[in-house]
Amino acid sequence: MKPTQAILAEILDEVRPLIGQGKVADYIPALARVSNQKLAIAVYTNEGEVIKAGDAEEAFSVQSISKALSLTLAMVLYKPEEIWQRVGKEPSGQAFNSMIQLEMEHGIPRNPFINAGAIVVADLLQSRLSAPRHRLLEFVRQLSGDTHIVYDKIVAASEMMHSDRNAAIAYLMRSFGNFENDVIPVLNNYFHACALKMTCVDLAKTFSYLANKGVSVQTKKEIITPVQTKQLNALLATCGLYDGAGEFAYRVGMPGKSGVGGGIIAIVPGEMTIAVWSPELDPSGNSLAGTKALELLSERIGRSIF
Amino acid sequence: MKPTQAILAEILDEVRPLIGQGKVADYIPALARVSNQKLAIAVYTNEGEVIKAGDAEEAFSVQSISKALSLTLAMVLYKPEEIWQRVGKEPSGQAFNSMIQLEMEHGIPRNPFINAGAIVVADLLQSRLSAPRHRLLEFVRQLSGDTHIVYDKIVAASEMMHSDRNAAIAYLMRSFGNFENDVIPVLNNYFHACALKMTCVDLAKTFSYLANKGVSVQTKKEIITPVQTKQLNALLATCGLYDGAGEFAYRVGMPGKSGVGGGIIAIVPGEMTIAVWSPELDPSGNSLAGTKALELLSERIGRSIF
Amino acid sequence: MKPTQAILAEILDEVRPLIGQGKVADYIPALARVSNQKLAIAVYTNEGEVIKAGDAEEAFSVQSISKALSLTLAMVLYKPEEIWQRVGKEPSGQAFNSMIQLEMEHGIPRNPFINAGAIVVADLLQSRLSAPRHRLLEFVRQLSGDTHIVYDKIVAASEMMHSDRNAAIAYLMRSFGNFENDVIPVLNNYFHACALKMTCVDLAKTFSYLANKGVSVQTKKEIITPVQTKQLNALLATCGLYDGAGEFAYRVGMPGKSGVGGGIIAIVPGEMTIAVWSPELDPSGNSLAGTKALELLSERIGRSIF
Amino acid sequence: MKPTQAILAEILDEVRPLIGQGKVADYIPALARVSNQKLAIAVYTNEGEVIKAGDAEEAFSVQSISKALSLTLAMVLYKPEEIWQRVGKEPSGQAFNSMIQLEMEHGIPRNPFINAGAIVVADLLQSRLSAPRHRLLEFVRQLSGDTHIVYDKIVAASEMMHSDRNAAIAYLMRSFGNFENDVIPVLNNYFHACALKMTCVDLAKTFSYLANKGVSVQTKKEIITPVQTKQLNALLATCGLYDGAGEFAYRVGMPGKSGVGGGIIAIVPGEMTIAVWSPELDPSGNSLAGTKALELLSERIGRSIF
Repeated sequence: MKPTQAILAEILDEVRPLIGQGKVADYIPALARVSNQKLAIAVYTNEGEVIKAGDAEEAFSVQSISKALSLTLAMVLYKPEEIWQRVGKEPSGQAFNSMIQLEMEHGIPRNPFINAGAIVVADLLQSRLSAPRHRLLEFVRQLSGDTHIVYDKIVAASEMMHSDRNAAIAYLMRSFGNFENDVIPVLNNYFHACALKMTCVDLAKTFSYLANKGVSVQTKKEIITPVQTKQLNALLATCGLYDGAGEFAYRVGMPGKSGVGGGIIAIVPGEMTIAVWSPELDPSGNSLAGTKALELLSERIGRSIF
Repeated sequence: MKPTQAILAEILDEVRPLIGQGKVADYIPALARVSNQKLAIAVYTNEGEVIKAGDAEEAFSVQSISKALSLTLAMVLYKPEEIWQRVGKEPSGQAFNSMIQLEMEHGIPRNPFINAGAIVVADLLQSRLSAPRHRLLEFVRQLSGDTHIVYDKIVAASEMMHSDRNAAIAYLMRSFGNFENDVIPVLNNYFHACALKMTCVDLAKTFSYLANKGVSVQTKKEIITPVQTKQLNALLATCGLYDGAGEFAYRVGMPGKSGVGGGIIAIVPGEMTIAVWSPELDPSGNSLAGTKALELLSERIGRSIF
Repeated sequence: MKPTQAILAEILDEVRPLIGQGKVADYIPALARVSNQKLAIAVYTNEGEVIKAGDAEEAFSVQSISKALSLTLAMVLYKPEEIWQRVGKEPSGQAFNSMIQLEMEHGIPRNPFINAGAIVVADLLQSRLSAPRHRLLEFVRQLSGDTHIVYDKIVAASEMMHSDRNAAIAYLMRSFGNFENDVIPVLNNYFHACALKMTCVDLAKTFSYLANKGVSVQTKKEIITPVQTKQLNALLATCGLYDGAGEFAYRVGMPGKSGVGGGIIAIVPGEMTIAVWSPELDPSGNSLAGTKALELLSERIGRSIF
Repeated sequence: MKPTQAILAEILDEVRPLIGQGKVADYIPALARVSNQKLAIAVYTNEGEVIKAGDAEEAFSVQSISKALSLTLAMVLYKPEEIWQRVGKEPSGQAFNSMIQLEMEHGIPRNPFINAGAIVVADLLQSRLSAPRHRLLEFVRQLSGDTHIVYDKIVAASEMMHSDRNAAIAYLMRSFGNFENDVIPVLNNYFHACALKMTCVDLAKTFSYLANKGVSVQTKKEIITPVQTKQLNALLATCGLYDGAGEFAYRVGMPGKSGVGGGIIAIVPGEMTIAVWSPELDPSGNSLAGTKALELLSERIGRSIF
């Protein structure tokens, strides 16, 4: 069955009662003050159709969802071995910002979606782009067709003020020889990427290349090759949901990436890209109602990768 | 493209030069003396066709591949929450027999495919079946249509003599209240399951329900529900390959389960079940040439879940 | 200043108000039902004088204090390298029954006073003594001059029923080749040693060799050499108080060994042996009021090793 | 027996053959180029007599020995609870610069002699002294009576260039709220303290207050109280030798502090202060021949705290 506006609206109605059972991220004020009542879903089909429900046109902080975009850029700029000698491809089995594993594994982060790994990717971009922050913004504006996408400067500045742990991570990797640039500017770019403000519709359109063998449905351009697309989806499926990747695969069964802003993107290869948003998080840091909405959608339309 | 005998034979020719670069499991003599030259692949389509190449009719020790069978039995016998309160669904991010995580997580194994998790599953089967060993053998004989499948008694006895670490794991779980039966008989059943001798053809036929929404292609009977099938495939995709699940997803892109006997099964949902065998292992404990054969097959026939 | 009966009584009066702030060990009923009001101190000088206050003639479960006795026996029976290749000499920095470190350090326990290390010592005794349990009892009866000392059979049996974690520890060491005998009889001896019932006077007399260059003040016999005495005191000072060795050295400044029965022995080399008893424990598992009593005694008589 | 020049010279002759079995610290060039042939010992008695042998008047980089001096200053400036709520008193049981424990224990270092703890002490000094670096230099010049003591600026600068791991440690503590000042200036002071150049005679005189109930034998002034002296010696005995504190207590039996420059100071309370120097280190990072020299001295003069 194909998703329809009615199905999406129905799903939002079903998950709305979950609001109140999770916890909005509150480590920075700009995230803490987002209303927990926000709820949105958008589907972008490989035929270019947008189907949506709820607050799908309201922009929110994408946070870690941006890690999939940064990795895409790095895959375009670098040969595979240049990336994968500096960051692994395995689930971490640890909290997303743990330093323990990083020390035991000599400064090589487990995968590009934990903080350490995303900081390595930011370091890679810094080494090869003259203006990585500008490049990323241009990239998402093109892919989404939305030229109004901006960085939330307050969020970026606020993250920077709470960056001690990420600075520790970067310095630890530097001590192992796995960091090339100055720590502060790299972190600044990293936090800007996290501070992208995008709507569910923007996100679904932006990531359409992952559902379409690497070709953006919006721009018709090949962003990455079919093999790279398969690889990126595989990484999302095994590592994209922090400590909750197994549970997410079990319940939703789609490659996905979440952010502490409450957004999640999910891919049905060959068919569609989905974005959901609900700010309250489960204990693993993934949107509680958002995950449930994806689970219901998977059941309702009979789609998953398994 | 559909797999043909010619494609399979070609793939085996391509991966044969890898023999010599891995290491046959040698912790027990019965495994150590298997020839490293063995090489096999078998595909069982959802239409019931068998395509095969190499030593596909020679039986070998399935080892941890049996964990997927035991879990299937447990899913039939128990309600989901009865299983998942005793074992998790997340990748471990640790070596497959690590006790560190088990202690830190209070005796709840990360997933049913690491040793600790499989021992919990064996404990579950012991609590509810009068003769779990007999039941499992009957199960694989039916699913494969091969009534000659047996337990390798020498392998089982030999494993039992090297069972100290697994005994430690079982006692540690017991100390946390996550073990119901006597340790020795449960371990004995666990090692018998690992000591199943099956061919690649047997394995491909046995696991056909995972490619066919829960219905065995061989027997036409529903083994588990479509939802359970999706769940089991999800668990295999995120946790089925020890520490190498991410790499396997990245390269092969199919749910799978490996064993230190050098076998791997892999699933293309809706289409086919695949089994490969090559005794030499990579550092993660997965068949080296077997993984490569699956990677090439995925490329050649253009199939993966991503 | 020399300790007098008056000083000891005064110290007990000062620490008695601490009762209620700790927690009596309750993992087995036989320990849980000991009155938290018990309070005792005994000093045995190198001149053979006994000074005491409180319940110093009442027997209690010595628990881990016995580990120092077992190690003494092992030091008599084995050459140093035979012991120290199987167990380390360093503080563990971990909870006393942690398996994490044991796995990371390949089955070699950090020191002979954590559970794993004491179980290795029990294994050593088992390999060389025909009746280790009998030998230990004889040993403490001689050293204390108290022929009524017995094992508390209820405590030993009760510990054996809660031995899963220690069994896990023993099997893990076995898997690393650091365990020679069958697990169950060794654990049984280990728990019997813990179940010794002794009074503070017994304990102070028994350990007098540690204050007297290896010669028992009671029997005048050399138990261990002066160098071994220095070594054993050093081990007690750095590893004798579980996770609280540093704090104990900082406050009390004497080599010591504690047990979860609430007893502690402490040594002033060249001068005296001290035993205290108060069943309530601090979070590290050491007697709360007992530690304070030793701290006050150190201050009052101006004695410590520092 | 009292130490004499002849005994000291004899001891150096005995340990000299060990040169070649250790490894000179080589993480910075200024340390790597020190001759491994250097060998020195100096004793400073509580009567004010200096006895020495070998290169006892040649200055070397004291490195971590300075941590005992910085802690002494902190103990003078702060109330005990102000220090001990920010840093623990227990052996770490881990390599001296491990971040794992620091993360698991929420940014509170185990003790003031591991790097993390010493950096907290440097942060404490920074908060309360206008010129901590100047103050420390003045302090050692007074205590040693040697006005020529200086910081080795090349060493300090070189350490600063290899400070990534220590920066990571500082930022991690900051993320837990256990760091008050800017990271860079604190690290700069910390590295200057490590870069103090002192001779064995300087060191033995400087630390004489630890052997003399807090009163400097050189200046006759009380540096810390008798209770503080006992406490500091206790901390040195349990935590002063990195991962080798237990072994050092077992063999030498004196409170001590080592540095990767190859120096060690050791205390015989009530009698004397000892300093040794030999640049080659054992695997724990302690001077190999230096430790042996202290062990022989302890045997020869029959002195230890046990």
